[in-house]
Amino acid sequence: MARKKPLYGNADEIEAAFYDAICRADIITLMSLWAEDEEIVCIHPGAPRLFGHAAIRESWEKIFAAGGLHLRATRVHQTHNMLSAMHNVIEVATTTPTAGDSPRVDEGDVHILATNVYAKTAQGWRIVAHHASFAPGTPAPEPERSALLH
Amino acid sequence: MARKKPLYGNADEIEAAFYDAICRADIITLMSLWAEDEEIVCIHPGAPRLFGHAAIRESWEKIFAAGGLHLRATRVHQTHNMLSAMHNVIEVATTTPTAGDSPRVDEGDVHILATNVYAKTAQGWRIVAHHASFAPGTPAPEPERSALLH
Repeated sequence: MARKKPLYGNADEIEAAFYDAICRADIITLMSLWAEDEEIVCIHPGAPRLFGHAAIRESWEKIFAAGGLHLRATRVHQTHNMLSAMHNVIEVATTTPTAGDSPRVDEGDVHILATNVYAKTAQGWRIVAHHASFAPGTPAPEPERSALLH
Repeated sequence: MARKKPLYGNADEIEAAFYDAICRADIITLMSLWAEDEEIVCIHPGAPRLFGHAAIRESWEKIFAAGGLHLRATRVHQTHNMLSAMHNVIEVATTTPTAGDSPRVDEGDVHILATNVYAKTAQGWRIVAHHASFAPGTPAPEPERSALLH
């Protein structure tokens, strides 16, 4: 029971909890956000796909052991219905600075795109897919239309 | 009315129609498979994200004008509920051979992963997201478990 987290009421809440858990290197919370389904998929930028809790957990543990990530989801575009939501975001990443290092901000030569897919389950909203990848250059400016829609 | 396509009864059917339309360079059918929502997103490998019918259509028209693609979705993993489905696939791509060229098969130094998100709409199942990206090396062998599940 101790590992049960509060029900997340919508995809926005679970997305916020996801990036917050990454920033805090909180593997327990991070893994509790995923659906209880061995077909859940996680793709880190430039890496092979990973399925299921064990492989996904191991990948994040390695990231956290290497110093962690400060990741923020920006410029969210989404489609949703009552049972699912697809968010496409630009991840702004700053690795945790270590002695003397400058934070590395992933905006410049490349940026990171992520498609996050959420589903409403008996346990509340959960992550079913996180697919992140590199795109060239700086993100294109958002059209005015999007600013109005969100 | 002429552009209305048959209702697709599930995500598998619309995924098959998607890759079939790509192979046939059939832009009309290809675009008819997407949800009527300007937040639909398409990410080609190594490229920026594109939103909405106009930008997505233009990108595929350029691909078809450049000779087209023979793309096949393999090793499908999926989660789904009554209103949505997330498919993660490995795309095996062979560009249409031109005079004297050998087909280029994207298995070797890199392979292509795609997350395809489908939603059930009033018009039947439609695509809401196609996110493709490069992963290094050859795809890892599938565990036996997956072979049993699918």
